[in-house]
Amino acid sequence: MSQYRIFNHDDAIAYVRQAAQLDSAVVLQGEEIGDGNLNQVFKVWQPGQAKGFIVKQALPYIRCIGESWPLTRDRARIEAEILLYHGQHCPEYTVAVLHHDAELSTILLEDLSDLQVWRQALLNGQHVAGVSEKLGVYLAQVHVHSSDFQLDYHAQRTAQLRFANPELMAISEAVYFVDPFCDHERNNVAPEIRLEAEQLWADQALKTRVARLKHDFRCKGQALLHGDLHTGSVMVGAGKLKVIDAEFGGYGPMGFDLGVIIAHLLLNFCAQPASRQQPQRIKDVQALWRSYKIQFFQQASQGADSSLAEPEVIGAFLRQVWQDALGYAGCEMIRRTIGVAHVADIDTIADPIQKAASQRQALALGRTLIMNADQLNDAQLEHTALNIALKESFKP
Amino acid sequence: MSQYRIFNHDDAIAYVRQAAQLDSAVVLQGEEIGDGNLNQVFKVWQPGQAKGFIVKQALPYIRCIGESWPLTRDRARIEAEILLYHGQHCPEYTVAVLHHDAELSTILLEDLSDLQVWRQALLNGQHVAGVSEKLGVYLAQVHVHSSDFQLDYHAQRTAQLRFANPELMAISEAVYFVDPFCDHERNNVAPEIRLEAEQLWADQALKTRVARLKHDFRCKGQALLHGDLHTGSVMVGAGKLKVIDAEFGGYGPMGFDLGVIIAHLLLNFCAQPASRQQPQRIKDVQALWRSYKIQFFQQASQGADSSLAEPEVIGAFLRQVWQDALGYAGCEMIRRTIGVAHVADIDTIADPIQKAASQRQALALGRTLIMNADQLNDAQLEHTALNIALKESFKP
Repeated sequence: MSQYRIFNHDDAIAYVRQAAQLDSAVVLQGEEIGDGNLNQVFKVWQPGQAKGFIVKQALPYIRCIGESWPLTRDRARIEAEILLYHGQHCPEYTVAVLHHDAELSTILLEDLSDLQVWRQALLNGQHVAGVSEKLGVYLAQVHVHSSDFQLDYHAQRTAQLRFANPELMAISEAVYFVDPFCDHERNNVAPEIRLEAEQLWADQALKTRVARLKHDFRCKGQALLHGDLHTGSVMVGAGKLKVIDAEFGGYGPMGFDLGVIIAHLLLNFCAQPASRQQPQRIKDVQALWRSYKIQFFQQASQGADSSLAEPEVIGAFLRQVWQDALGYAGCEMIRRTIGVAHVADIDTIADPIQKAASQRQALALGRTLIMNADQLNDAQLEHTALNIALKESFKP
Repeated sequence: MSQYRIFNHDDAIAYVRQAAQLDSAVVLQGEEIGDGNLNQVFKVWQPGQAKGFIVKQALPYIRCIGESWPLTRDRARIEAEILLYHGQHCPEYTVAVLHHDAELSTILLEDLSDLQVWRQALLNGQHVAGVSEKLGVYLAQVHVHSSDFQLDYHAQRTAQLRFANPELMAISEAVYFVDPFCDHERNNVAPEIRLEAEQLWADQALKTRVARLKHDFRCKGQALLHGDLHTGSVMVGAGKLKVIDAEFGGYGPMGFDLGVIIAHLLLNFCAQPASRQQPQRIKDVQALWRSYKIQFFQQASQGADSSLAEPEVIGAFLRQVWQDALGYAGCEMIRRTIGVAHVADIDTIADPIQKAASQRQALALGRTLIMNADQLNDAQLEHTALNIALKESFKP
């Protein structure tokens, strides 16, 4: 099975049979269930059983674009290794990798079809209790245990080399920090907010801050990030939570992961003004951060490096992580509004006036987070978000 | 010649003959001239000729300690590659690598015996004009050209991997940021300043700042550092300057290189109160920084990344580099006073009272730089240094 080929569902079934060591007598069914962004995804199951297996296979190009945009298949190996590393330090909240094959660029994953995508729950206006708290625990666990709080120089440098992911993180660098802050052909700017986009592109104070965040994204190799922790990478339900899709992972600033998930909560906030769910999104952000802080403190204060395990050191460190997180949250809100990839939360708003108002809110709040990252604590964030929502909603 | 063995001077001669492609009829003499820290160093020359060649060979252990402290010979390859990279971007001020052999762990270098070690000139009270300015140019060149101002994501990540130097940089981490800030057995604390050392070890505010500098030393991979730029790594004379000894190099924060050289100028300052040379040292620091800033600005504003090439971005970036530099300068001053390795500038002071006063100054100034890094500009540094010198000189 070791020569690479693009799987059809029979290949996926054969791969599962071998990788999961199932007897040849076991009947298996398979279908492609990928939502068609980067990879192929198959579900393979025994008829009559609720749960099966998931096979994720990387193609040598970006699936939704085609062969004209080649992309390393090695991302499957990198993703598998990141998930295994995260799973080692946070098994409860990391999807289980059952097998992976570097040559076939496949990962065999546990089937999570009893859970739902968190973004979908949010779009349905459904509150799933405890998600933010669990995500805070997950992030603190995987961050601390891949950082200098736990690893000595050699171990951390080795991990930084092993998890180097230059092709995919270069894409992140471009789509987060370059394209949305200039009139780039990859951008996707609705005509209704073209003026606001142009104001951002001319805003040198903002661009100076973004340049710093961009620099830090590349050079601040603090921890093994998930790298793409939006609400679509989180599966929830029945008191469970599993994080999936780590192909954009690699070493980077801890605040990046936090910022991305905070941004998606705030994008959802901007998408539903005056709904009952709106205040809950701010509470989610606060709960996430508080849970992260508590778990981080606990893990870091038992860390292997005694010079870092001091409360004052951890406290000062966390203040910087929060500031970084707000900056990255701002970038993510802006790039998901005027960059190449948007979010369903806003894109599915039917009323064009309402949609433009949500987009304006997202841009304004994103900009404020970037500019005021060093002045906003998690309580003030609420006030700021509500103020901006109010102001932007009443614009012509 | 490719099997590793520890060279005697005949081996060094044979190596030079081959590597420099000298005819077998050419008569060569050789002698070991290493000052006995990490490596063997041979000078090989033709009788009657003023200049010859330098052969530097890494031993599989730390020379001055012996086989009980093994150390990778790969450091010779890493050093050669760093010097070549630096030489590519600043040939005027980087010692020329003529040949290197990874298996023999040798580097063939140009002979700089027409120059003198800068530290020696400083110890002799000799002012060599233009050294600080040249060093500023050197550092700005090698920093900018190995940073995101010039390299795209892939090129910089590749360089970070290629120049990874975990064994030697782990030593730096320990001797700069761990040992001097606790009562470590490797420390070398004069009885006269034991009290001051103990005060530092109990100073949690200081240790919190040092923990941050330690974290950044490991995680802030901004540029390909020299990694050990003290005044003994700089050869000067006759209007020339050459930087040598890059085996502690690797990716790290730009402020580290600046901080180390600033610290050695300030250690010399502390060593000679009331001499005519003392005010010159502060001027040297200021000239170094101003030269660095100008060169950095010029190179960065023509950089490949247009989002970083903006004056506001470069200015904000340089402010952070300066703050980092002061922090690292403070660590270096402290570790060179109470850590394992001291500096001749202070250690050669014959009068024990004067020596202790110089050491106290170095500790106090080092602490001030770390604590006030975000408040001191290069002009205020002068005032601060003179104030501390005055205060510590009159202590009992």
